[in-house]
Amino acid sequence: MKIVILNHILQQYHKDQILKVVKAIGAEVCFAESESTIPEEFSAPDIVYGFGINIAKTQTSLKWLCLPSAGVDYLMKPGVFANEECLLTNSSGAYGVSISEHMIAVSLMMMRRLTEFHEETLNQQWGKPRAQKSLWGSRITVLGTGDIGQCFAKRAKAFEPEQIIGVNRSGACNDPVFDRVVSVDNLDAILPETDLLAMSLPDTPQTRGILSRERLQALPQGAFIVNVGRGSAIDEEALADCLENGHLGGAALDVFQTEPLPQESRLWKTKGVLITPHVAGNLTLKRTLDKNVDMFCEDLINFAEGKPLKYIVDRRKGY
Amino acid sequence: MKIVILNHILQQYHKDQILKVVKAIGAEVCFAESESTIPEEFSAPDIVYGFGINIAKTQTSLKWLCLPSAGVDYLMKPGVFANEECLLTNSSGAYGVSISEHMIAVSLMMMRRLTEFHEETLNQQWGKPRAQKSLWGSRITVLGTGDIGQCFAKRAKAFEPEQIIGVNRSGACNDPVFDRVVSVDNLDAILPETDLLAMSLPDTPQTRGILSRERLQALPQGAFIVNVGRGSAIDEEALADCLENGHLGGAALDVFQTEPLPQESRLWKTKGVLITPHVAGNLTLKRTLDKNVDMFCEDLINFAEGKPLKYIVDRRKGY
Repeated sequence: MKIVILNHILQQYHKDQILKVVKAIGAEVCFAESESTIPEEFSAPDIVYGFGINIAKTQTSLKWLCLPSAGVDYLMKPGVFANEECLLTNSSGAYGVSISEHMIAVSLMMMRRLTEFHEETLNQQWGKPRAQKSLWGSRITVLGTGDIGQCFAKRAKAFEPEQIIGVNRSGACNDPVFDRVVSVDNLDAILPETDLLAMSLPDTPQTRGILSRERLQALPQGAFIVNVGRGSAIDEEALADCLENGHLGGAALDVFQTEPLPQESRLWKTKGVLITPHVAGNLTLKRTLDKNVDMFCEDLINFAEGKPLKYIVDRRKGY
Repeated sequence: MKIVILNHILQQYHKDQILKVVKAIGAEVCFAESESTIPEEFSAPDIVYGFGINIAKTQTSLKWLCLPSAGVDYLMKPGVFANEECLLTNSSGAYGVSISEHMIAVSLMMMRRLTEFHEETLNQQWGKPRAQKSLWGSRITVLGTGDIGQCFAKRAKAFEPEQIIGVNRSGACNDPVFDRVVSVDNLDAILPETDLLAMSLPDTPQTRGILSRERLQALPQGAFIVNVGRGSAIDEEALADCLENGHLGGAALDVFQTEPLPQESRLWKTKGVLITPHVAGNLTLKRTLDKNVDMFCEDLINFAEGKPLKYIVDRRKGY
């Protein structure tokens, strides 16, 4: 069994951890920085851990692709896998800590108007106090209650919000951090009582355009939005309108319908938009990378033993 | 008994709350926007709630000055009170929520390098991922374990740091949010194991210059500093040196030795300094202002009944 590891930021202890499992299961492994530097004898591997998109497309030998990211939407199209039976796992669960930290940071940057103070101090201006808002006493709605949504809610809770409501497909979620969890059918009822809408949804036919113009308008005056899932979830034109006409207080966007955000996008210059270049979930964080490698090693043992993979992507649901 | 309320941002419900207590104790009250608009008949009041610095200096009638801020260092000099027996209370305890939110926000802005991403997006640049750090797994030291330090530690805890150590004068603190509390005599031992140093100290002879050049150098490579107490606590020149030579990862400063920060200060252009213009504790937050008024009303009853004031400043300690 031949395994290719594509990852240029693994530390030696990560490699040692993988090598130990590889040895235990009697496989062969090669570590490569990118697909173009894989040695000939590993060109038709059984397993790839990393963004092995070309291998998946060309090698029928591939039985399992383990992606180090959570989002897999771009692999859901036909023709992506030469071997249509190839298993796909993702790293959903590795990113909650990193992405939820980002979500709290950008929420506070908007509510406390720190971006404006920062812009002034870049010009050596000592700004005057401005009206600020607070996570304290705010009504938070978390759209998407997976690992990321739960990690965010746990952190947000420490800031003593008035309520945290989770919204997901089923309306079921065991995490007691949520004061209430409702199904997405009730989203319209929840939006008018939402001061901060935190979105961490995958891209699926059900989530595409979920935050429509009508729903943006249903949010109360001055509400804030954070989106770290997929840009397809928001009507970007309607969002820009709602920010420019003062209906919304701000929007922190790490994801966009098109990435990188095109130069001609209105969002670059829309008042109240805080743009980050898809960096909320960042493998440079030790914790994220450690967890990522742990998850691969766990499923590598499962794979070798013929057991179901724990982090398998349900291609029907798309996540 | 004549009471002057100096505060231009009180809402009608705050005024109603104060009026109710004033009526109950049989006093007279006047609400004024500033000292210059106080009517003649209230020019020699018994009590002032607000920044009544000129009244304190000139009116021997004044028996109690209730300050809506936490910092009182500038009132500790001789000659500030015409009546040397005048009582002084502050609003320490009203600001924990507001200031601790600010502290988390700026910590994450530095660690996750959001200021740099933001500066790039202001120029329509889609930045590349950078090495980030995280509150997760970090070693946090909280210098000053009062209301602000405790509120900060409670919020920081939700981000799963490796440890939170409190440092104060006595080494005693009952709040279980701290993994350990040590006295300031042990500060030198704690600094080398501090990834994030959060400072919320009053200005006193003991705290002036407490973060000296030697102590800045004792912090580990890449450490971050947040200061929301008083600027006098840090050797600003040494801090700028330690940031410019790459020893420290960043410093978020809301307070400075001189405020507003003078145009000629090095800090404006020092790499890694995140400047805010003394806005961490902001009365524009409803919660802070509500609490502030609550505290005044509580002590107004105490005063009328001849009981000790709860929020009295110990002029010997200076806070």
